Order: sequence, then C-alpha cells, then structure tokens
Amino acid sequence: MTLRQSLTGITCPIVTPFDESGVVDERALGDLLEYLLAGDIDGLFPCGTTGEFASLSRDERRRVTEFTVEQADGEVPVLAGAAATSVDDVLTAIEDAAAVGADAAVVTPPYFHTANAPAGNQQFFETIADESSLPLLLYNIPACTGQGIAPETVAALASRDDVLGLKDSSGDLEYFLETMRQAADADSDFLMLQGYDALLVPALRMGADGGVNALSNVAPEAYADLYETATGVRGAELQTAVADLFDACGEYGFAPATKTALEYHGVIPSAVVRPPLVSVPDDGQAGIERDVDGLVQSED
Amino acid sequence: MTLRQSLTGITCPIVTPFDESGVVDERALGDLLEYLLAGDIDGLFPCGTTGEFASLSRDERRRVTEFTVEQADGEVPVLAGAAATSVDDVLTAIEDAAAVGADAAVVTPPYFHTANAPAGNQQFFETIADESSLPLLLYNIPACTGQGIAPETVAALASRDDVLGLKDSSGDLEYFLETMRQAADADSDFLMLQGYDALLVPALRMGADGGVNALSNVAPEAYADLYETATGVRGAELQTAVADLFDACGEYGFAPATKTALEYHGVIPSAVVRPPLVSVPDDGQAGIERDVDGLVQSED
Amino acid sequence: MTLRQSLTGITCPIVTPFDESGVVDERALGDLLEYLLAGDIDGLFPCGTTGEFASLSRDERRRVTEFTVEQADGEVPVLAGAAATSVDDVLTAIEDAAAVGADAAVVTPPYFHTANAPAGNQQFFETIADESSLPLLLYNIPACTGQGIAPETVAALASRDDVLGLKDSSGDLEYFLETMRQAADADSDFLMLQGYDALLVPALRMGADGGVNALSNVAPEAYADLYETATGVRGAELQTAVADLFDACGEYGFAPATKTALEYHGVIPSAVVRPPLVSVPDDGQAGIERDVDGLVQSED
Amino acid sequence: MTLRQSLTGITCPIVTPFDESGVVDERALGDLLEYLLAGDIDGLFPCGTTGEFASLSRDERRRVTEFTVEQADGEVPVLAGAAATSVDDVLTAIEDAAAVGADAAVVTPPYFHTANAPAGNQQFFETIADESSLPLLLYNIPACTGQGIAPETVAALASRDDVLGLKDSSGDLEYFLETMRQAADADSDFLMLQGYDALLVPALRMGADGGVNALSNVAPEAYADLYETATGVRGAELQTAVADLFDACGEYGFAPATKTALEYHGVIPSAVVRPPLVSVPDDGQAGIERDVDGLVQSED
Repeated sequence: MTLRQSLTGITCPIVTPFDESGVVDERALGDLLEYLLAGDIDGLFPCGTTGEFASLSRDERRRVTEFTVEQADGEVPVLAGAAATSVDDVLTAIEDAAAVGADAAVVTPPYFHTANAPAGNQQFFETIADESSLPLLLYNIPACTGQGIAPETVAALASRDDVLGLKDSSGDLEYFLETMRQAADADSDFLMLQGYDALLVPALRMGADGGVNALSNVAPEAYADLYETATGVRGAELQTAVADLFDACGEYGFAPATKTALEYHGVIPSAVVRPPLVSVPDDGQAGIERDVDGLVQSED
Repeated sequence: MTLRQSLTGITCPIVTPFDESGVVDERALGDLLEYLLAGDIDGLFPCGTTGEFASLSRDERRRVTEFTVEQADGEVPVLAGAAATSVDDVLTAIEDAAAVGADAAVVTPPYFHTANAPAGNQQFFETIADESSLPLLLYNIPACTGQGIAPETVAALASRDDVLGLKDSSGDLEYFLETMRQAADADSDFLMLQGYDALLVPALRMGADGGVNALSNVAPEAYADLYETATGVRGAELQTAVADLFDACGEYGFAPATKTALEYHGVIPSAVVRPPLVSVPDDGQAGIERDVDGLVQSED
Repeated sequence: MTLRQSLTGITCPIVTPFDESGVVDERALGDLLEYLLAGDIDGLFPCGTTGEFASLSRDERRRVTEFTVEQADGEVPVLAGAAATSVDDVLTAIEDAAAVGADAAVVTPPYFHTANAPAGNQQFFETIADESSLPLLLYNIPACTGQGIAPETVAALASRDDVLGLKDSSGDLEYFLETMRQAADADSDFLMLQGYDALLVPALRMGADGGVNALSNVAPEAYADLYETATGVRGAELQTAVADLFDACGEYGFAPATKTALEYHGVIPSAVVRPPLVSVPDDGQAGIERDVDGLVQSED
Repeated sequence: MTLRQSLTGITCPIVTPFDESGVVDERALGDLLEYLLAGDIDGLFPCGTTGEFASLSRDERRRVTEFTVEQADGEVPVLAGAAATSVDDVLTAIEDAAAVGADAAVVTPPYFHTANAPAGNQQFFETIADESSLPLLLYNIPACTGQGIAPETVAALASRDDVLGLKDSSGDLEYFLETMRQAADADSDFLMLQGYDALLVPALRMGADGGVNALSNVAPEAYADLYETATGVRGAELQTAVADLFDACGEYGFAPATKTALEYHGVIPSAVVRPPLVSVPDDGQAGIERDVDGLVQSED
C-alpha cells in the first residue's frame, strides 16, 4: 500500500497535552496515541493547529513528532507539521521530522508576510519541495495564515510526485470542489482531505479521499465509522452528531475545546493550553460535556 | 533625555537588504543606516514587517540588530523586532537583542494562533513583560497577525513602566484615538506612534507622539520635516507627497515597494526580497520611480 | 400535489429582458418563459436578484409577475419576488403579486437598515407573514442584504404553515446544513432550496429539496437532469459543466452574465442591464460563449 | 451666501420620531426641529440613515421633508434624503423633495444590486444628475450599501456644478483624505463633510468643510461648538465627550441609540423604531443616559 493509499480515511491532528505547568506531558500523549490507534485512525498528524505547533519550541516539535513515530510503530503513517514563516525554518522543521522517522511533512503558506502576488506562495512551496527529503501535504487554513492557497497554485504543485495532496480547513466547500477539479486534471491520485469537520460528509459524498479532523481526537471510532458510511444514512447521522461539538470548537478555539473534551472523556488528565489561548470558561464546560456524551454514544 | 522622549518623532522600520542570492548584505545595510542617520531619523527599528523579520533566521535577526546598534553608536535608540508565535520564542528574541545592545523590543500578538478570548493576548504580553530584560513597544498590525490588540488590553499594559507605548499600523484612526484616550488614563507618558504612513499627519494633529513609517527609509528628511511641521500647511503638503508612494506599498507590499524605491534612489544596490514576497513587476517600477522623485523633491 | 411538493426540483429565477433602450421586453420574456417551460423547469421566480428587481418600478414588478403567471398557465407555480426595505413596501409587493395570481412570495431581510439585534429580522418576517395573503419563501443572500438570516430565525419561522421554506444563496454550505438541521426539527416538510449554483449537487446529496439557480435560465434541461441524477456520477459531471459559467456570474454579476449567455444562446435578443449594473465587457464575452457551449452540450 | 457656503459647518441628519404605534409623530418632529434650530445647526437632512428612510413610504418621506422645510423657514438649507435602488425611484424621490421646497438631494449608490464594474456607480449618479432638478450631495456609507463610492468616481462627479459635495460615513479616514485630495483637483469648492462622528475633529483638522452627524440631534450646541473650535484644545475635548455615546450608536444602531438619547433628554416623547430595528434593551439604557449627561454637560 502506498503512502497515499494509507492516507485515504481519517487522519487525526493530535493535540499536544500539557501538564498543569504547561510542560509537554508525554505520558498523556502516549495515552492519547494508544486511544487513537485502538480507534482505527488511519494517520497521525502531530504539531498541527490543534497541536498548538506555533506555541512549541523547535525541540518540543521534534520530540512530539519522534514520540508519535515511536508509538505509531509503523502501524499508521505519521505526518509531521512543519509550518513556519520562512523557507529555511520550514526546511529545518522538515529535516527534524525526517530524522525522527516521519513519513511526510505538512506545510502551510507563510503566516506573517503573506504573498504580495500570486506567484509568491507557489515559489515558496516549490523551493521547499525541491529541498525537502520528505513528501509534502499542503495545508490550506486562511483563518490562521491570512491568505489561502489558490486552486491554481495547488494544481501547479499537484503534478509533482513529492506533493501528496491538500488538507483544506477553509470551511469553503466551493473552494474545495474547485481545487479538487483542477488538481485532478494535473494528477488523478492527488489526495483531497477535508479538514473542516462540519463539511466532512458533503466532501466525502463529492469524492474527497478523507479527512483530517480535530474531533477525531475525541471520537476516533465515530470518525472511522463516518468515513466508512459517509454516502449512506448513517454517515449523515454521524455528521449531525459531530455538529454541536464542532460549534464549540468555533466558539472556544480548536485546542481548548478539543482538550476540554478529551479531559472530560478521561483520555488526557488536563486541558491546559499555552498563551494566547485560554482555557474554556466554566460556563462553557457543561455544554462541551453534553456534546461529548452525544458524540461518543453515536459510536455504537 | 529618557528613552520615551527620544522616541517622540520618527522611527524608521529599516528594510533588510539582500544581495542577489538572497543573503543579508551588510555593506548595503551600513549605507542605509548612514543615510538614515544623516537624515535626522529619531530611532531605528530593525527586524520589523518592512524588515522581513519572519523570513530571517534567529542568527540573522540577532546580527541585523547588532549591526544596527553598532552603526547607531548611541546616537539614536534601537528598537529590535522580537515578534514570534510563542512566549518562549519572543523571550529568546528579546534576550538576543538585549545581548547585542538594543534599547527596547517590539512585540506583536502571536500570529498563527490568535487568542480565543480577550484575556489571551493580555496574558501573552504580561508573561513576556514579566520576564523581559528590555522595555517593550507594543505593535498592532492586524492585517499580518489576524487579530488586533484591543484598546482595553493596551490600557491595561500602559500602566506598566516596562511597556513604553504602541506602534499602530492598523490604518484605523478611530482605533488609534480610542486607544490613545484609554492609555492616557493609565499613563500620560504612554507613547502613541502612528505606523500607517497615510494617517501620520492626522494622528500628529490629534496628539500622537510620532510615527514608525516604512517610507522614512526612502525619505528620512521629508519625514523629519513632516513631524516638525505636522500641524501647519507644510505638514499637509508633505502628507500628500507621501500618498502616491504609500499606495504602491499597498499594491506591491511594504518590503518590495520600499526596497525598489531605495534601489532607484541609489541607497541600496538590490531590491531582492525573500519568498513568499516577490519583486515589484516591471510595469510597476516606473510608477514607483516617479513617486520617489516627487517625494524626494518635497524634502527641499 | 401540494405547493411544497411542486417546488421540489429546480425553480428558475428568471432574468427580466430589456430592449436596447432599457424598457422591459415582453416578447423576449415570453420567449424565455416558453424556453423554460419546454425545459422541464419546476417553478418560476420573477423579480429576484437575477431579475434585477431592485431596478424595477412597482408597476414593472407587478406586470412582470402577471405576465409570468399568464404564461405559466398553471403548469408550474410562480413565486413572486417581494423584497423591499420596509414592512409596508413588502406587503404592497405581496398584495400586488397576489392580485395577479402568484402562488407565493419570496422575501429577503431588509437591505439598507440591517437589524441591530437578532430579534429584528424575526419580527420583520413575522409581521409580514401575519398580514400576507400569500405563503412565503425566505431568501437568504447576505452579499446583497448585508446580513444573513440566522438559522435560529429560520427555525422559529419554519413552524408556521405560511412559511414554505428557504432559498439560500450564501455560498456557505455549513450554514445551509445547520439551518436544514434546525428547521427540520421545527417542520419536517420545510423546503430547503440551494440558490448557489456551485453548491447544488453537494446540497442535494445532503438532502436538499431542490435549487433556485440563475443558470437554469440558460440550460433548464441540464438543471432538470442534474436534479434527477444528483446522487449519481451524472450529477457530478453536470455540476462540473456548470462551474465555468458560474465563475463568470461571480466575475461579471448574475444578471449581466446570465443575460449575455441567453443572448448568445438565442433565447433573448439583448443583454441590456440597468445601472448600476454594466454589460459584460467585450473581453469577457468569448469566455461566456465557450462556457455556454459546454453547458448546453452537457444536456444530451 | 451660496448653498455650499451655508453647508460648511454641521448638518443634522434628523431622526424621524414615531408614536407608540409606529406612526410618524409630527408634533415630536416639530419639537426636535425647534431644538436643533435653537442649537445653531447649519443644515437639516431629513430621510437619511438615522431618519430610517428605508422604513418610510414614499408619502411619508415627502411629508417629513415638507414639514422640515416649513419649520426651517429659510433659516438653514434642507437636504432631502433621496436614496433608492433604481434611477427612476431616486428621481421620483428628488422631484418629490423639490416640489416641497428642499434645497438639495442626498443620494447613495444603489443598495441591493451593487455595481459589477467601477463604471456602474458613476453612470448611475450621472444619469440622476442629468435629470435632477435639485443639486446633489453624494453619500458614501458602504456598511449599508455594500459598496463604497470610489475616490475616482467622486472626483469625476466633482467637476459638475450640480454635485455639491460628499458626506462620508465610511469610518475610513484614509478614504476621506484621498477623496478630498482627488476632488479638490477637480473642483476646489467641492464640499467634504465627515459623517462618522468619531472622526469629525481629525477630519476638520485636515481641512474638511464640516460634518453630518447623528449625535448633533442630541447635542446641537456641542457640535456647533466643536466645529468652531475643532483645531484647538476645546475641539479635542468635545470629540472625547462624543465618543462614548457614539460607541452606543455602534452597538445599538444609529436610530435606536439616538432616539433613546433624545427621549431621555426630553426632546421627543418616544424612542420607537420600525422593524428590523429594535429598541435599545433595558440593560443598555442606563449607559446611554450617562453618556447623554456627559455630552450635554460638555456644551457649557
């Protein structure tokens, strides 16, 4: 099975558990990974947005990736987050990830200086791809980077063997479909992964290859089931079951809401996040707990 | 004269000159600094937005700051850009800057993860201020960070001795005035610096303490003159003289347009920028050259 | 068959043809209606956005609706656009439409003054529904009205017998699905119609009842076919065939692009629009012609 | 004194008082006009945004304008709001206003269909100006119309004798200054009026000719004083005194907040607004009352 084939299905963008003093908690991370692997997740993505990568030091990113590779133990591929604002820093993150055994690297457009012309992002990604020792997964998340990756840019990169696919977290299905259409012309194997949980079933029904979804941290079995049954009635029911908890992610932030759900569910011991993120306020906890109960019940 | 007193007037957010292969060009940087000091600039701000800080490595940022401190030679203060996405990385940048002799550090809110609640940015800045060995200048630039600093947050920080003031590059004068009003209640010495060139004269006429303006790279004397004469007719004329070149910054990006102007004006040998920024296209060069001629003529 | 049952499928928001001097051209309108009825369209919606209702006088709106009712001759229902900025003007438009035989009225939120609180739009719609002699179809088009209709507002109105359903032209599938979910709880018969052509197939695959789509003016048979085959491969192919022409609608405006397509296709004699709309420029015509050829070929 | 000369200073965009059943209350309108004229206001603008024009019928608009003209009795000019979505409806509103004695008409771009190309708004305004029997004041309020008037469009219209000037309510001072610069090249007498209360003093200090400000309904003397003293310390103090009440306008809407302030101040008997606007909630009243006290005290 090729790497692309392995990545059809659901990849989990794992949270990075911290202890009460804000230090990475490897024991909790180990418990989380065990929970996810038991839940039939198809891939692991440490150091993404939900993983608070931008609040981790270089050493922490490398170690979280290494630990994830060790725990995955070849069972599922590991895609290491390697986003940064400069070509050199992205390449450093990629080589760190390669050194500890990651299978691929996930890269966003730069997120302080946005490209002043359409060619800028393409040049940024091409320079990285030329130098990288790992294949790349493009990651579109304009809410965080200030600028999306144009469908034309994705299509231009899709023809390269070392660019596997796209994770799209824009929340814009028209963009997803247009990009899927243009990328398929360049490479029929290009992976289209839906990163916005509320659009997962519609994307799968339109031919997406899978999802990379924050809430698969909380309910991996429900997501695996959703992927298998997406085109049927069961898939729609599961999408509905996801909706309320996803609203909480929109309201309180992905890492705070997902960690709160995981703490309530007993997978990690603490929902601590690093600044500027703040924990879910007391009056938001009960709602999340109710949503978790609803989502986990839907797994049966 | 206190540091705050020194910073009333015009501070230049200096570009970082690269040679044709994209390497930092210290000889060009030296020429630029000599040009700015001869032009009566009141402060130097290396490693800001116009300085493409997010495309520089840690070593490059430290060296550019060190070189600027050496050239300034105590004549004017040096404010080192220290923006990053995590508390630890900001503190590392600040201590690097302190070690090479910078007078203060300039900090933005984090620019990938935005705060999920108002308290998040305040906590981010307070944690940094508590640990920093340099005083801080806050830097509001929502177009790049995705989220501005709320007036209430600025006011809460204004009462600290180690938070000198705010550079506002939002382009929103109502925000600037409201923040000035709230900060003055907390500390009447709090520095309010206008970072959006097209609003410099209105801000000065409303009581701003100065500006931090990309185009002072190109025409330092015009900006010094503008500051001195802001409330009179001459100030308005100079604001108008700035307008066309500022439009080009909006169209082509600050670093690309400013570097193109500096190359045409003979201050630096090359307008090279790093990806994702791309150089001003050929059909934009002539306009910038015309604007530079207009602005430089206005200096007399 | 109830009115709601009749409206499952594709309703055409018809353009209002003008002659070269900008006067409503009834002969051209007659030809268009004949073309649409022959193309198996399920409903007719005169005086909508694509119909340039906001550029028509009260008399013109009444007459265009009357003429449409006459031509439809009971074969398909006629939904008359009745949007206005005040309760009284909406009710006047509804009674005009009722007097000439329309089956229902389509209403947007007010589009100059937007509600200053969530309750405002609900109160606006309820006041209208209480007084209206026709059942209503809600119309969500935030790009034109400045404010969308909240899912909660739709759900509150869905329980009324005299509110048939929602046409959503937001382009936001997450909104559509969330609203469908909430409305279904209030009334399982509530009609959910997708008004954004590029999202028609995804919406149908998620359970939408039909579409109200500008480009069904140009290719009614293709849209009827798309509706019938939406969940299969053929539906996806037709969605792709629609995409390029829909892009032109985004670029040149719905009425200008649709009228240009209809003129090229020989259905109406002139693509004239009223100010502030301007005709598609010469360099845009060829692309639209190519897209029309592609779309019409897909009908076979 | 020419009309343009009369309009330098402060023009009041008057609210339209309603009684408890939502009917226009002429007695209250008379009291308001008496209050404003006693407060040294320089012009009256009935049927604007704050006047809820879009919720008034044609007859109501004509009558409110007529009543204003009668009460003004030649003391100050009356500018009648004549915004609508079609050329014909704008012209109808203008001729209604002319028939009852208004001095000029205020026109916005169309507010449902926005122009699909830059030339569209210019053509819309030119067609109106060619046919209008009254001179025009352009009105830029993109938050309500969805699209602003480009500086180039204003400049093109500024050379006409029948286009007096611009009211800008965008809240964007850079736009205001750029437009002032371009319009002055076309006609040095072109009136530039600041419609966003929080930017009134900065605009006046940059050379604006006056303001058209919602809160002059509440405190006409303070606004007259502000205009006279704008460039001095007193002007800045008054701008500050306005700020809190203006924030309430932003939070609760212009008509609801201004009417609430007028009811508290004893000028009109009721703060009733028409849907979709809703009255200021109970927990917002106290703040507005405090702000009114502060603003009125500043008048002495």
